Amino acid sequence: MSNAEIQPDFSKGDGLVPVVVQQVDSGDVLMMAYMNREAYEETLATGQAVYFSRSRGELWRKGETSGHVQQVKQVLLDCDRDTLLLVVDQVGGAACHVGYKSCFYREITSDGAKVVGERVFDPDEVYK
Amino acid sequence: MSNAEIQPDFSKGDGLVPVVVQQVDSGDVLMMAYMNREAYEETLATGQAVYFSRSRGELWRKGETSGHVQQVKQVLLDCDRDTLLLVVDQVGGAACHVGYKSCFYREITSDGAKVVGERVFDPDEVYK
Repeated sequence: MSNAEIQPDFSKGDGLVPVVVQQVDSGDVLMMAYMNREAYEETLATGQAVYFSRSRGELWRKGETSGHVQQVKQVLLDCDRDTLLLVVDQVGGAACHVGYKSCFYREITSDGAKVVGERVFDPDEVYK
Repeated sequence: MSNAEIQPDFSKGDGLVPVVVQQVDSGDVLMMAYMNREAYEETLATGQAVYFSRSRGELWRKGETSGHVQQVKQVLLDCDRDTLLLVVDQVGGAACHVGYKSCFYREITSDGAKVVGERVFDPDEVYK
């Protein structure tokens, strides 16, 4: 397989690949989302993260409502070509729709879940 | 929902949740895999990462063949409760079955894919 043919394999996941999103400077894992081929190509073309919303069944231009876009710094493909890692700079500092830096703001402990993440904004203020 | 009830929701993904795996000291994203409830509970109970192999249709005790187990340092749950982030210490230094530290060893560039990851072992030596 030549270098130019190394592309995500959208056939395994019904046209979607999972995408892990990591903040460039801190290394924090911000979120996980999905892309179809159209979202992937628009992301590469524009340098801003575009996903496919499984719940809405349409392209999701991250930050379109909140202004909290993700500027793409690096796109990495895994060994099986069925998962992407997007290294981004998250504008506004929060990737999560409930206002945390990262969607992974709760730790599972033997006593239950504990909030460990940092809240950056109040969603009621951002999504009016 | 009380803290103790905050658990991964295995119902959305046909009994599976995707799991992002991150190396504790470097912050490197190592791989993505899946867990069913049994794999999740064994991971919490033993402190070593156990996944569900979709291709083999069975539990996958990471490192069982290679010795390259993942010691779990933190288990984080996302806002929608449908994705986990596992912070681990990767024994042997490589998570990827082709011998790289991370499965995300290739960068997609406008010229095609470029290997940017570090190779730690030769798979022919490890999986005899």
